Amino acid sequence: MKLIYLDNNATTKVDENAVNAMLPYFSEKYGNPSSIYDLAHISHDAIQEAREIIKDFMGAETPNEIIFTSCGTESANMAIRGALALNKDKKHIITTSVEHHCVLNLYKELEEDGYEATYISVNERGELNLEELKNAIREDTALVSVMHANNETGAIFPIAEIAEMVKEINPATLVFSDCVQVAGKIKMNLKETKVDFASISGHKFHAPKGIGALYIKRRVKIPPFLIGGHQERMLRAGTENVPYIVAMGEAAKNCMQNFDKKIEKITYLRNKLEKGILDNVYNAILNSKAKNKVPNTVNIGFQYVEGELILLYLNDLGICASSGSACTTGDLEASHVLRAQNVPFTALHGSIRFSLSHYTTEEEIDFVIENLPKVINKIIEISPFQKELKELKNKNN
Amino acid sequence: MKLIYLDNNATTKVDENAVNAMLPYFSEKYGNPSSIYDLAHISHDAIQEAREIIKDFMGAETPNEIIFTSCGTESANMAIRGALALNKDKKHIITTSVEHHCVLNLYKELEEDGYEATYISVNERGELNLEELKNAIREDTALVSVMHANNETGAIFPIAEIAEMVKEINPATLVFSDCVQVAGKIKMNLKETKVDFASISGHKFHAPKGIGALYIKRRVKIPPFLIGGHQERMLRAGTENVPYIVAMGEAAKNCMQNFDKKIEKITYLRNKLEKGILDNVYNAILNSKAKNKVPNTVNIGFQYVEGELILLYLNDLGICASSGSACTTGDLEASHVLRAQNVPFTALHGSIRFSLSHYTTEEEIDFVIENLPKVINKIIEISPFQKELKELKNKNN
Repeated sequence: MKLIYLDNNATTKVDENAVNAMLPYFSEKYGNPSSIYDLAHISHDAIQEAREIIKDFMGAETPNEIIFTSCGTESANMAIRGALALNKDKKHIITTSVEHHCVLNLYKELEEDGYEATYISVNERGELNLEELKNAIREDTALVSVMHANNETGAIFPIAEIAEMVKEINPATLVFSDCVQVAGKIKMNLKETKVDFASISGHKFHAPKGIGALYIKRRVKIPPFLIGGHQERMLRAGTENVPYIVAMGEAAKNCMQNFDKKIEKITYLRNKLEKGILDNVYNAILNSKAKNKVPNTVNIGFQYVEGELILLYLNDLGICASSGSACTTGDLEASHVLRAQNVPFTALHGSIRFSLSHYTTEEEIDFVIENLPKVINKIIEISPFQKELKELKNKNN
Repeated sequence: MKLIYLDNNATTKVDENAVNAMLPYFSEKYGNPSSIYDLAHISHDAIQEAREIIKDFMGAETPNEIIFTSCGTESANMAIRGALALNKDKKHIITTSVEHHCVLNLYKELEEDGYEATYISVNERGELNLEELKNAIREDTALVSVMHANNETGAIFPIAEIAEMVKEINPATLVFSDCVQVAGKIKMNLKETKVDFASISGHKFHAPKGIGALYIKRRVKIPPFLIGGHQERMLRAGTENVPYIVAMGEAAKNCMQNFDKKIEKITYLRNKLEKGILDNVYNAILNSKAKNKVPNTVNIGFQYVEGELILLYLNDLGICASSGSACTTGDLEASHVLRAQNVPFTALHGSIRFSLSHYTTEEEIDFVIENLPKVINKIIEISPFQKELKELKNKNN
């Protein structure tokens, strides 16, 4: 059975180029970059080369603004802890109600440690309430964390505008943006913004799981998060993951090649999938409704049915999709993101996210458009909500 | 030019088996272990399989005692921060004066945060002063961190005995052992000890750089260090590095195969190298003098000459060795480990560590024994300490 992988916001297939690029660094060029001999210089230089690429990829000003970490979560934790260490006397922190758990759960922890947190709401299209954010900024606001794009709905938040606004009201407030879900999907240009910290994760753009980066704007000097050796200019101790750093550089380079063409194709396929489902499934409603959203994501609520059941049926067809963030799978609670934008209760537990990549083919999308309605119909047959479904069908036809 | 890699305490060549084992997890079996479909279950199961292997490798009681991290430094930071979170009211911490910087630098940081730290000394053979440690344990001692083996001298500290002693004096004191330098060199059996936390790093035993593990004894419940998703039983957020976890499992399995035979060979070669240098170089003194030491390490001080110069000449011959921890290369200060055991000032800056692996051949060792004396003689010729060297030569002949 052919696999149709439509869960690229959870993780991605590693590019063949990226695998090939890192292979020599396992058993040939395996020197510790901190050592003194030639073998070590090879590793050291490979890291610097990758740092240059990631600098361009994120739109940073200098390669020194890029710190390699082990994942997006580490980058976010490091940025947030670092920002608070710089603003020790300020005890108010702001974020959105739809952040990834690497921000939200840390904020919960910080609240227990005495911080006051404000969570900015989104409208029913999943767009951030900028007025609410503006009014929330205070004299004692240490940090504003706003993701660049949401992992479940793809909604893009205007981080450049937000950082501008934050700094205008309180220049001392630091701004972190979780950019994990935009890397490879929209062009980043951090140097043109007032964002202080931004995180990316390699495995969301065809590098391996276990490598990330944190952008730290020049002149923002935070203490290290991992403490030990002198790696990453004393900011991230631990022997550098040379192969994955090389792989992430290569994957980023691949992303930037023919970027517009790839995005055009992904957008076309995403729109085709979205329309194909909404046109053919009467209980389907669109959850990913932001005007500005990443090109690869569509989130659809199927009313009166169970999302997990849909996923299992799709799995039988070789289709990989998800009901929310992979990081929260297993939770029985409905997605905090969809609840935040007031997705109707009837669709909340039956919401499915499809996320494409440039590996996605039209054939695959056509297969899903053809087969998903059959899956939904099968599930509808065993739904206890026959009356409601009938009413819905009559209304929509 | 053939490479003679004798810096295996800094990092190791990745086993071919380990590379082959992880390869399918990049572009075929690339599912996010947290997802719901079959592709994800493959990743999930692979992690559990590796966890079983690492459980055996570390001598843990259950696989749940093993948490995968991104490196030895993260494991150490997590253990120390976690232990202190469990002993919040206790403000005294103990470690040794010869720990790796992932412990020492964190202790310095903790001192700035109000902790009182005691650093236990070593004797001139690099052995820990157990009586001093015993007397240092107090009612308010939150944590004792003692490495299992030192990275520069290979000296083994009796962590089982130490943990026993600590718990007898204060059962509430937690014990962490940095086991990075024993993994693959001596058999670990943590379940037979009272050690609460122990760290290993994959790249010290032929797995890649960028993967580590932390052993946390059953019933010791620490808060997560990286906060976010539910991975690693809520203890380490961040998408799991599936390929490297698989690779570390495979590397550990390789280590355990024919373990005694490999160690016998390494010990023989190390002893041959040690004797070969000491017999043939009149200004050489042995720094790695502990009665109990790991089988692969020898540290030799060359009096009145510069270590960095030796390393550069060795590099010209394709020989990789080091003058201390890779994590501190670039520091101008002499090794804190050698200073702690009172290595004479005359040898402190000319000390070289050779660390072998089971890939090391007798031919390589013979080459070093033949060529190193020539290198030292060349450097001696340009030393400003001709008078002292002449005296030494006369004394030793």
